[in-house]
Amino acid sequence: MTEGQNPAFVLRAIAQADFEDRPIPKLRDPWDVRVQIAQTGICGSDLHYYDHGRIGDFVLTTPIILGHESSGTVVEIGSAVKNLKVGDRVAIEPGVPCRHCDYCRSGSYNLCPGTVFAATPPWDGTLAKYFIAAADYCVPLPDHMDMEQGALVEPVACAVQMTKVGNVRANQTVVVFGCGPIGVLCQKVSKIYGAKKVIGVDISQGRLDFARSYGADDTFLPPKKPSSEKTDMEWSEQLANMIKESFNLGEGPDVVIEATGAASCIATGIYLTKKGGTFVQAGMGKEIVDFPITIACIRDLTIRGSIRYTTGCYPTAVDLVASGKIDVRPLVTNRFKFENAKEAFQLVREKHENVIKVLIQGAQN
Amino acid sequence: MTEGQNPAFVLRAIAQADFEDRPIPKLRDPWDVRVQIAQTGICGSDLHYYDHGRIGDFVLTTPIILGHESSGTVVEIGSAVKNLKVGDRVAIEPGVPCRHCDYCRSGSYNLCPGTVFAATPPWDGTLAKYFIAAADYCVPLPDHMDMEQGALVEPVACAVQMTKVGNVRANQTVVVFGCGPIGVLCQKVSKIYGAKKVIGVDISQGRLDFARSYGADDTFLPPKKPSSEKTDMEWSEQLANMIKESFNLGEGPDVVIEATGAASCIATGIYLTKKGGTFVQAGMGKEIVDFPITIACIRDLTIRGSIRYTTGCYPTAVDLVASGKIDVRPLVTNRFKFENAKEAFQLVREKHENVIKVLIQGAQN
Amino acid sequence: MTEGQNPAFVLRAIAQADFEDRPIPKLRDPWDVRVQIAQTGICGSDLHYYDHGRIGDFVLTTPIILGHESSGTVVEIGSAVKNLKVGDRVAIEPGVPCRHCDYCRSGSYNLCPGTVFAATPPWDGTLAKYFIAAADYCVPLPDHMDMEQGALVEPVACAVQMTKVGNVRANQTVVVFGCGPIGVLCQKVSKIYGAKKVIGVDISQGRLDFARSYGADDTFLPPKKPSSEKTDMEWSEQLANMIKESFNLGEGPDVVIEATGAASCIATGIYLTKKGGTFVQAGMGKEIVDFPITIACIRDLTIRGSIRYTTGCYPTAVDLVASGKIDVRPLVTNRFKFENAKEAFQLVREKHENVIKVLIQGAQN
Amino acid sequence: MTEGQNPAFVLRAIAQADFEDRPIPKLRDPWDVRVQIAQTGICGSDLHYYDHGRIGDFVLTTPIILGHESSGTVVEIGSAVKNLKVGDRVAIEPGVPCRHCDYCRSGSYNLCPGTVFAATPPWDGTLAKYFIAAADYCVPLPDHMDMEQGALVEPVACAVQMTKVGNVRANQTVVVFGCGPIGVLCQKVSKIYGAKKVIGVDISQGRLDFARSYGADDTFLPPKKPSSEKTDMEWSEQLANMIKESFNLGEGPDVVIEATGAASCIATGIYLTKKGGTFVQAGMGKEIVDFPITIACIRDLTIRGSIRYTTGCYPTAVDLVASGKIDVRPLVTNRFKFENAKEAFQLVREKHENVIKVLIQGAQN
Repeated sequence: MTEGQNPAFVLRAIAQADFEDRPIPKLRDPWDVRVQIAQTGICGSDLHYYDHGRIGDFVLTTPIILGHESSGTVVEIGSAVKNLKVGDRVAIEPGVPCRHCDYCRSGSYNLCPGTVFAATPPWDGTLAKYFIAAADYCVPLPDHMDMEQGALVEPVACAVQMTKVGNVRANQTVVVFGCGPIGVLCQKVSKIYGAKKVIGVDISQGRLDFARSYGADDTFLPPKKPSSEKTDMEWSEQLANMIKESFNLGEGPDVVIEATGAASCIATGIYLTKKGGTFVQAGMGKEIVDFPITIACIRDLTIRGSIRYTTGCYPTAVDLVASGKIDVRPLVTNRFKFENAKEAFQLVREKHENVIKVLIQGAQN
Repeated sequence: MTEGQNPAFVLRAIAQADFEDRPIPKLRDPWDVRVQIAQTGICGSDLHYYDHGRIGDFVLTTPIILGHESSGTVVEIGSAVKNLKVGDRVAIEPGVPCRHCDYCRSGSYNLCPGTVFAATPPWDGTLAKYFIAAADYCVPLPDHMDMEQGALVEPVACAVQMTKVGNVRANQTVVVFGCGPIGVLCQKVSKIYGAKKVIGVDISQGRLDFARSYGADDTFLPPKKPSSEKTDMEWSEQLANMIKESFNLGEGPDVVIEATGAASCIATGIYLTKKGGTFVQAGMGKEIVDFPITIACIRDLTIRGSIRYTTGCYPTAVDLVASGKIDVRPLVTNRFKFENAKEAFQLVREKHENVIKVLIQGAQN
Repeated sequence: MTEGQNPAFVLRAIAQADFEDRPIPKLRDPWDVRVQIAQTGICGSDLHYYDHGRIGDFVLTTPIILGHESSGTVVEIGSAVKNLKVGDRVAIEPGVPCRHCDYCRSGSYNLCPGTVFAATPPWDGTLAKYFIAAADYCVPLPDHMDMEQGALVEPVACAVQMTKVGNVRANQTVVVFGCGPIGVLCQKVSKIYGAKKVIGVDISQGRLDFARSYGADDTFLPPKKPSSEKTDMEWSEQLANMIKESFNLGEGPDVVIEATGAASCIATGIYLTKKGGTFVQAGMGKEIVDFPITIACIRDLTIRGSIRYTTGCYPTAVDLVASGKIDVRPLVTNRFKFENAKEAFQLVREKHENVIKVLIQGAQN
Repeated sequence: MTEGQNPAFVLRAIAQADFEDRPIPKLRDPWDVRVQIAQTGICGSDLHYYDHGRIGDFVLTTPIILGHESSGTVVEIGSAVKNLKVGDRVAIEPGVPCRHCDYCRSGSYNLCPGTVFAATPPWDGTLAKYFIAAADYCVPLPDHMDMEQGALVEPVACAVQMTKVGNVRANQTVVVFGCGPIGVLCQKVSKIYGAKKVIGVDISQGRLDFARSYGADDTFLPPKKPSSEKTDMEWSEQLANMIKESFNLGEGPDVVIEATGAASCIATGIYLTKKGGTFVQAGMGKEIVDFPITIACIRDLTIRGSIRYTTGCYPTAVDLVASGKIDVRPLVTNRFKFENAKEAFQLVREKHENVIKVLIQGAQN
């Protein structure tokens, strides 16, 4: 890697990623800053582009730098920037919206079609020495937060948005489907917000054990569907009833957060939610699923999608970590140097049960 | 029919309804009133019990008096009643909740499991000379509203709840699936609340013509699915795009109200709703449907069920009719005397396109 | 006025306004458009700067072009503009926020401290041949709306924001203090949103007469306080009771909108509002007033300030006018040519009861 | 005190309270339960009736039993009661609404004019051996909560309502005026809900010290107003600025909770609240205060009153105590036997700084 350049880890085509020397990127407007990346977490979507070259309408047609869960140090600021100075250590919110559409103007910038999102084709990501960010999408880290914690702010911010969409509050009961990084963070954030009882659901006993040690009050391992005459939907309804009874949830939990995308979890979650309660769909899997719509109707459920983050999620996530309410360190199971990014991706692809979050250090030279 | 009795139209078993002389019902508590019924509309749910003996968990095991969309005159009041006096003409909200559960105490009495709902097994309905109602669930009619209008308050109140759940407001675009009585009333209420453009969808050209004359700005007749290789869901997505383009709805309407229960309408409605918009499920049909859950998630839709009515729906509905904003008379296509109730039900069962709302007069002696 | 220049009506110091030839303004960024102004309404704040040189923290230290209620024709567009083209006729929302602060990012851009607001020192206004506007803060006018109607969109948008803050909806009772342009538009918008009964209050019988002809269901002329031993606050409470009784408002109206800023109206309005109801402060007058805080507390009132507009107000206002729901033409009582702007301001200063809204035509050359 | 009777501590007239033997009270309806009182806290309103014989419209005209913050054991249940059984230990919500008015039906039962509220004239309170309560207004205590904790649920429920009205949530900054029992509980609840920084304000250094040890991140002791030419309001504004600067609150806290009723705190609180923020008035003092209404308007504040409790407050309060999130024991500074109730009231009247909460044990025979 050459001095005065921007070493980057670039996805050129499906499963073809390698290092490149790119020119050091320039500020695009006076509100921008240049950040030297310190740590980057690998996320499911990075892997999905790596393996499939597309997510929905976003298709890899030109090479992109991978990575979007990052922390770093501000090394250059635009003339309009007031909230940051050179040397500030920051967590980087990876998507910057157009600021001019009705979504942006009404506070729903997560829906802006003009968003420039790191490592989403055709936009470059953060797995490089330098990254250009909008100053108001960088949140300063207090001195006692390290860069690894800063990189982990991204999944915490996802959980903050999901619990915000679910309007999780004190004395509620919450069931979260999925005990991966996002799932356990949703469980933890729900507890921090005062939820009375939080139950994690997963098919991996190891993940359930981790969830209980991390934030969940209790966990549920769904039994295998017996090879009976029950349909999948009848089985989902029965699972929902088992969960209600196992954890004394009465008519069901106030909030269900679905963080797996699995069709069976979606159906079970709808059957499970209390009348008048809220079901949050955050996981993504099969595009079309069987859905108990009449139950959703007569129980007056509120079903919401959760996508990306909205105003306040990143600062809230930084505060949750900075205040010690959330300890993100137990989530980091593997660390790689920048020059070993390929090995890092390979490890994530292997989907070991004990690999939770993999971090890649920023380029050192 | 004997003097001093309560002639009633009773469903004894599936498709077995006949007249009976019941004792005049007594007030159950000091907050009750006795109403002499003047007019009763027939609703889909009455017919459903008549034909099938059950709706969901409500099963006909003992005979019930049919009917729940009624107006009448107060003939007796309990000692605690202050808002009504003998002689008052009222519209009767048909469901009275327990007043003690958390749903009742938090303003969601439509979800109260202890609700006594007229003509829902095992509770008697209003197709009788007298009906015992809770005073606070009777809304006085102004002098210039007649009893037919009073009976039609019920479907208006349904539409008020559906538009409330959908949070319909000024300058919005709204698509309503279904142009039966509830559908056209939703369209009309949406216009009254200031919606910019309201589109009705139905498969009956006659109903579409009526919808346009009643409240809709425009209507859409879905073409038949060509016998191509498209899946049902692909066709639903294509229909959604056709609707967006036909009516210049851009990314889609702000609110979709689904009042048919048809699986194809539900899927089309989800594909149709604008990012961040609201989809209201009010129609009931197939219990399990194919559902584009990923679209619902990434578009951050709010999906809500609408069931019955909440505080304010009945008074609002009376005001909408009393103020002349809604003319319910064009909805009434057929009128029957009490002693011809069987013929009325038979007519509704035949589902003629030009039969919109059928009314049965109260027992005259 | 010289060709190729930008003739402008400039306030140089208190009560010193005159015409100047300014250079034609240039687009500031690619999202901007240049509008040739067609019509401009004079507003109380224009007059306040003219007479006092300041409003709150905004102090006239350098000359500013006056005017901010304007319509016009787009004559130049920036490279990023997609929603407008040259020749489009538009209503101009006069304040453009910074788009980077937390207020902007969360949908409360009306609170953005970095807002560039027309004719608010040190920013130039619209009383000139040309004005630079942000494209997304211009709302296209349909062909059948003329430029006078386009200029009147501004006060309609104010009323839209005030009724939005008050959450005015169907079947509510609303009392509006003040029957000037903003007050009567609040009354009209409340009726359009379905309010059951809207009462206007003013001390001018002429304004009350206009209010009744325009949108109010009824009006109230407060009697003079008798020279008794009652305190001002006791008198306010008595006035509130008089209003409740006069119009059968029971425990009070659901919503009170205070559009005068008069201390007596504020106190009366608080005493008037129903338990659990909403009081909107929109008028500005004395900075400190006597306030019945215990009543506000035990009645669980929601008291909100209304300032400027938020997302959707301008498009909603255009639709309310375009659809014919609001006829703004009766509000226009006086019209002036650009070169007679001084006379226009003089007329407004004289505060004749029959002068409602004064319009100044754009510079013709 | 005679066996088979209901010994009670009765306020007969101002400052005239004594013991009486009343008949054992009977259930009023099938939803009622009879509770044997275990512990009762003394509250400011008890004292106010004792000293002044009235609060607002509630005037002592017949003797009433004092006391409304109580726990006890269910000794008799009505025929309709399902949620409780004899022997259950409960916290008693002291006000039972009419269940039939629009406030009750819409979830705002705290505003119901027909509420029967313990120890509010003419209704008897809980300072007796037995008290009749509505079953749904009793919340069972888990085994590990003692009766003293149960009596303290009442002030916790007040704080839960105040923070609910203020919509306190994660990452917010909150300033609470007042560090008495209610104030410190608001501070604690705010922290539990995830508030980033909570500041307590009081004029007693002892209370501030307690507040910091209990829940507040920091506290503020307002300096005395210098005898300068500043008006009271200018001084309030200056105090607000001092608080903002002392605690790095930028434009001000997101939420201000005013729990003193002092005029100077109200004014300071309004000046202090961030643009778009929420000010909750919960304390009651002078009925009319000087109020910076223009600031409230242009900053788009939401000002809310908080009164009593709404659905969920009591169960939430029980859970906050039961889960150990709130330790109410440090609040209890003095304990009295039932027969020493007079001494207890005398102690509270003396307003010692180190007397926080005084408890009176239930009658033992």
